[in-house]
Amino acid sequence: MTAIAEPTSRTDEHLDAVFGALADPTRRAILTRLTQGEASVAELTKPFTVSQPAISRHLRVLERAGLISRSRKATARLSHLEAEPLKEATVWLAGYREFWEESYERLDELLVTLQQPETDPTGRGTS
Amino acid sequence: MTAIAEPTSRTDEHLDAVFGALADPTRRAILTRLTQGEASVAELTKPFTVSQPAISRHLRVLERAGLISRSRKATARLSHLEAEPLKEATVWLAGYREFWEESYERLDELLVTLQQPETDPTGRGTS
Repeated sequence: MTAIAEPTSRTDEHLDAVFGALADPTRRAILTRLTQGEASVAELTKPFTVSQPAISRHLRVLERAGLISRSRKATARLSHLEAEPLKEATVWLAGYREFWEESYERLDELLVTLQQPETDPTGRGTS
Repeated sequence: MTAIAEPTSRTDEHLDAVFGALADPTRRAILTRLTQGEASVAELTKPFTVSQPAISRHLRVLERAGLISRSRKATARLSHLEAEPLKEATVWLAGYREFWEESYERLDELLVTLQQPETDPTGRGTS
């Protein structure tokens, strides 16, 4: 029960920031865009209907979570994907894999059961 | 760029709710506790310093994200883990695996490079 009794470790705080940053479709789309390479704020704003200041705010949230780093190139400020925190989040989620896999197995069993009466074991249809 | 141009699909909204629900150490700890089996609000409150109403609010966030279901047993309201949405979140994160794995490989290479000057190729120490 240690994990429950100590909910404020450093990893926990970082996971809060990472999951919080991922809880927005625009921020997730920005990360998707950055998998293709670094981009300026203007380039990141283009596909969205939101304003450049709004995108800048999203970038600050991503930067605080360690999901992007930023550098200057002439007057542009470029964002780079930093994927390591996504690993941390995936490792946390992977601990629950057996619980969703179990429910998937149950679903598979249910589907097999439901399909059986519909199947003609002789391989001949009735129509 | 479809994923970027359409940031408000149903999956996206659900991922918002799931990642948002995971962005809190108490809520993550509640999910961890529920891997051991269903629990009442009182049982879920016990390991924490937060109040029962606060735990109830966390449970509502988890329920909205589909991460728990609730049922009544006499006067107690029991929470059950529903792990499927965690799969959805993991699938999203898995799409970024190559980016963190690449950076891990780079880290490994760097560590090898850093260790080489320290290694005595004859296998004999100097002390």
